[in-house]
Amino acid sequence: MKLEKQSSNKSFDGWHHQVGHRSEVLDCDMRFAIYLPPGAAKDAPVPVLYWLSGLTCTDENFMQKAGAQRLAAELGVAMVAPDTSPRGDGVADDDSYDLGKGAGFYVNATEAPWRDHYRMYDYVVEELPALVEANFPVTDKRSIAGHSMGGHGALMIALRNPGRYVSVSAFSPICHPVSCPWGQKAFGAYLGSDESRWREYDASLLMQDAEALVPALVDQGNADDFLDTQLEPEALESAANARDYPLELRRHDGYDHSYYFIATFVGDHLNFHARHLKSG
Amino acid sequence: MKLEKQSSNKSFDGWHHQVGHRSEVLDCDMRFAIYLPPGAAKDAPVPVLYWLSGLTCTDENFMQKAGAQRLAAELGVAMVAPDTSPRGDGVADDDSYDLGKGAGFYVNATEAPWRDHYRMYDYVVEELPALVEANFPVTDKRSIAGHSMGGHGALMIALRNPGRYVSVSAFSPICHPVSCPWGQKAFGAYLGSDESRWREYDASLLMQDAEALVPALVDQGNADDFLDTQLEPEALESAANARDYPLELRRHDGYDHSYYFIATFVGDHLNFHARHLKSG
Repeated sequence: MKLEKQSSNKSFDGWHHQVGHRSEVLDCDMRFAIYLPPGAAKDAPVPVLYWLSGLTCTDENFMQKAGAQRLAAELGVAMVAPDTSPRGDGVADDDSYDLGKGAGFYVNATEAPWRDHYRMYDYVVEELPALVEANFPVTDKRSIAGHSMGGHGALMIALRNPGRYVSVSAFSPICHPVSCPWGQKAFGAYLGSDESRWREYDASLLMQDAEALVPALVDQGNADDFLDTQLEPEALESAANARDYPLELRRHDGYDHSYYFIATFVGDHLNFHARHLKSG
Repeated sequence: MKLEKQSSNKSFDGWHHQVGHRSEVLDCDMRFAIYLPPGAAKDAPVPVLYWLSGLTCTDENFMQKAGAQRLAAELGVAMVAPDTSPRGDGVADDDSYDLGKGAGFYVNATEAPWRDHYRMYDYVVEELPALVEANFPVTDKRSIAGHSMGGHGALMIALRNPGRYVSVSAFSPICHPVSCPWGQKAFGAYLGSDESRWREYDASLLMQDAEALVPALVDQGNADDFLDTQLEPEALESAANARDYPLELRRHDGYDHSYYFIATFVGDHLNFHARHLKSG
């Protein structure tokens, strides 16, 4: 598997790279971003925080807007941000912003025309970490985080793969996609009308049955325009309370759905993940 | 003068606003961004750091990508980022990225068709601070900073108005515009072919004759693609050395012209300005 560095920027004495590659799983060319903290080297590999972005984003939004490199450099944690869907001329798309390109929802699609490329679950869980771990000075210690659609992705993926991630966090996640408009539209298109097949991608439902407990931190702004219609943090909180799941869910007055919110609290998330990545 | 808040985001317990207004000086509608740190209030006004952006930018680049709000909040400093040129359908433009909209170069144009609107010098020095100081809980203590074309703007404006700014800083500034392609093209268009009229907008030439000494901090990346052809930090350094000007110019191996560079060192700039804004 050949990787191509498409851009490199020194950042807080470490390096941000945009990396192009052919994805076997998605059957298209993809790009991801990686931040390597200073000191990361073959004989000094560092753990990795994966970041999953929200609707319409690429690998760039988090790396440019979250201001996370300062603390990642200090803590010695690498960060990897994949794109939010398969890309390219041959990939099915939709005119709306919440389906198709930029809106992969981190599932493996089973329905036409999506099933040819939309396998973001396998890409994020399997192919991307394998690529990263084979080509960069990182360990196989992983945490995962995300925003909105990517918060859904991070929680769902950690709950289904507790052995692969030591901690999970999310900003403004879509907590219960089977019951909100964004999730119902995407799951209906990608997974079909049999709603029983949607359950394996719903964090609130998965949390009820999770076998191992990946520590979770969730931040939600109370002035978030999508809070009432799409995000349903109360569903995640109920699931956690019902079984004493190690979830810390914080609500913040005045904060909205933007990267200004993420930038404000991303330091708490990095410290949370670093604590778990560096213990045990 | 009526101001219109076009967006507001809570950020590090303070507030980021995008503000629309009619500019008398530019004779068009404009938008600027302001960050107010927590605690800023009529009975507790805070000093202001003005940020001038580079070619193609708007009020958004710095606020979204520099990660400056964390320390501005901690230090109790407001930040204001204007646009980089007049805007709107009635404003003259050029097909190239380095002339016309997004490329005002912080001068008062004297030539057609630019002179009708391109008066960014007066806008930044006079109209904008007056608006900000009349409408927000800030003092009249000001510092000024910028990047690339905006670094030129910040240095040039501070050198010409030492009584209005207590400190100045720049990332990758165009230090000697009368002698580089960007500056020659813009000054030729906006100011005409008589090069003697360009001198009053050239930081390296102004520094030779500056009457009062505004402390200056400049950061330059050694891997900056524009360093050899456009930026000429050595001209500024020579001017400073020739007269013992209080300029600290730092060169950084590996860093480029991007906001990844700015984000890495913006904390040093905020601390530098806060020290001057809060003394005396």
